[in-house]
Amino acid sequence: MTEPRSSTVGDPRPVLLTMGDPAGIGPEIIAKALRLRPELLSRVVVVGDVPTLQKALQLTRAHDVAPDPVLAPIATLAEASGLPSGCMAVVQACVLPRPVPLGRIDADAGRAAADCIAWAARAALRGEAAAVVTAPIHKEALSAAGVPHPGHTEFLQALAAAHLGVDVERVPVRMMLSCPGLRTVLVSIHVALRDALAAVTQDQVLQTLRITAAHFQRSGLPQARIAVAGLNPHAGEGGLFGREEIDIIAPAVALAQAEGINASGPHAPDTVFMRARQGAFDVVLAMYHDQGLIPVKLLGLDHGVNTTLGLPFVRTSPDHGTAFDLAGSGRASPASLLAAIDAALGAGI
Amino acid sequence: MTEPRSSTVGDPRPVLLTMGDPAGIGPEIIAKALRLRPELLSRVVVVGDVPTLQKALQLTRAHDVAPDPVLAPIATLAEASGLPSGCMAVVQACVLPRPVPLGRIDADAGRAAADCIAWAARAALRGEAAAVVTAPIHKEALSAAGVPHPGHTEFLQALAAAHLGVDVERVPVRMMLSCPGLRTVLVSIHVALRDALAAVTQDQVLQTLRITAAHFQRSGLPQARIAVAGLNPHAGEGGLFGREEIDIIAPAVALAQAEGINASGPHAPDTVFMRARQGAFDVVLAMYHDQGLIPVKLLGLDHGVNTTLGLPFVRTSPDHGTAFDLAGSGRASPASLLAAIDAALGAGI
Repeated sequence: MTEPRSSTVGDPRPVLLTMGDPAGIGPEIIAKALRLRPELLSRVVVVGDVPTLQKALQLTRAHDVAPDPVLAPIATLAEASGLPSGCMAVVQACVLPRPVPLGRIDADAGRAAADCIAWAARAALRGEAAAVVTAPIHKEALSAAGVPHPGHTEFLQALAAAHLGVDVERVPVRMMLSCPGLRTVLVSIHVALRDALAAVTQDQVLQTLRITAAHFQRSGLPQARIAVAGLNPHAGEGGLFGREEIDIIAPAVALAQAEGINASGPHAPDTVFMRARQGAFDVVLAMYHDQGLIPVKLLGLDHGVNTTLGLPFVRTSPDHGTAFDLAGSGRASPASLLAAIDAALGAGI
Repeated sequence: MTEPRSSTVGDPRPVLLTMGDPAGIGPEIIAKALRLRPELLSRVVVVGDVPTLQKALQLTRAHDVAPDPVLAPIATLAEASGLPSGCMAVVQACVLPRPVPLGRIDADAGRAAADCIAWAARAALRGEAAAVVTAPIHKEALSAAGVPHPGHTEFLQALAAAHLGVDVERVPVRMMLSCPGLRTVLVSIHVALRDALAAVTQDQVLQTLRITAAHFQRSGLPQARIAVAGLNPHAGEGGLFGREEIDIIAPAVALAQAEGINASGPHAPDTVFMRARQGAFDVVLAMYHDQGLIPVKLLGLDHGVNTTLGLPFVRTSPDHGTAFDLAGSGRASPASLLAAIDAALGAGI
């Protein structure tokens, strides 16, 4: 895997860090991450609820030896650059009428999480932020708050489409999962494997290749080596175990190559991730969720980063959920969030 | 992963090591393996062609510092135990009318490889061997020799069925792939992913569970913790992304549990391999080829071992092919073959 020239390094705009569901571990892992790595304070602005973050600092204090950052509420992102060192800049982007109970689905919590995401995304869409890092939200809390999106990706897609004045289909996005040594972009995500097979079309594979290439182009790796995995065992072994490689994937790769995209494949799925990890490729296009997720989770659950490709701005997130069972304990690990912040500072790759 | 009490340790019968295709790397990796680990000579009998093995010792000599074992042709397995230390016992189980050209598909080579397999399997079926380890063969060479089986598994299955006097369907087998820290048994192998989905039936999953449990029972791990992977992302998330977990896999697991098999699941495919590696399970049942092969290849291509479950004897093999491009160079690594021999000495697990 080639290390990119980082394109947000030197960018004076902040990376926005949304608080996530206030009933989950989001506020606590933000507190722990920024206490553990105080040098990030000058690059990050938290978009959340000041009292919730204050409480998260208290909840996690016993678990850390480093001193607390000073919470510094700001009204505009421009104010962040004027703060003294050691301050955690926070934009109060939501209204919480009461402290939410930790570890439970709560409509107010869902609403607050959604308001923070919308605030951060709009600022990024206006060009006021270098990237957005999102702490975890809870699908059912969002739903309880009447938010019509099941997760970050769909929500951000809708916000971007509204900003651009286009239909949401005009902002196709893909999920990239990364861990140390391996990156994978998924053609489809949360659908039955049977439906994932149907989603492997020439258009979908080509679109995934274009979105991936555009992301790496913008991120300082313009000739990123994109390996396309096959769908079938041994990539079909010349049509012996399935024809999708011959009829769909190889033609999509050829079209992408004709556009100047540095793509190769289809490669045998069972060895392409190993080869990418050994340095042969910068990213692997996976044909379905588990093809890409199994190797990434195996290599680095604690340091997994989820990047949304296709948005007009860089968005990363930790590769875990709200962990309601841990909320309030101060024990949740900030490792994946820190990896997501580092990825955002490195332009999401 | 629990380490088993080894059940072939203390078994006075030899482990048979078939030469594989004489045009491939098989003879060379046998020579390198037994030169590198001379203590194995007293436990192993090579089933092959004496002149080919002699040549393989020469071809690999420059690459090794250890002294050569002495080739000791034997006519019956009983003779092996009377040999002095440092001897490589070889049963001449095939006829090669001329030295075969290295690195090419050759009918005589295919015939010789098949004869060695048949000899070793029949000896094991008669109870004269503790296990069989097979060096790689070439599908097209077998075919050129008129052997009606595409690979070891089908060939051994047919030999076992003939020995038992039953139809081949009465000897259902499954492939287990192992590497340090992870074992996986596959419900189906070399079929298109579309067909692999159709092969996920309650009968197939239950049969795989029974075969797996019987193997570990015989191998000294009677309560092996068998994790069954789901088929769909997040194991279907309660039916949201596919119903195979609810309709097929969970009922099969319940039936196996009722038979006293220590099975659990269906588990989310993207984390079950990671959990197994961390020690939560002894083996993972994978629903299709790449679900199991991606994690095993990622963790240990050099030390991958293929074990055939369901045969009346233990059979292991290295997890690679004949590597015609390397044949004759003396550069092929014996690591996977050594892992396969060690697995056979540890009863295939």
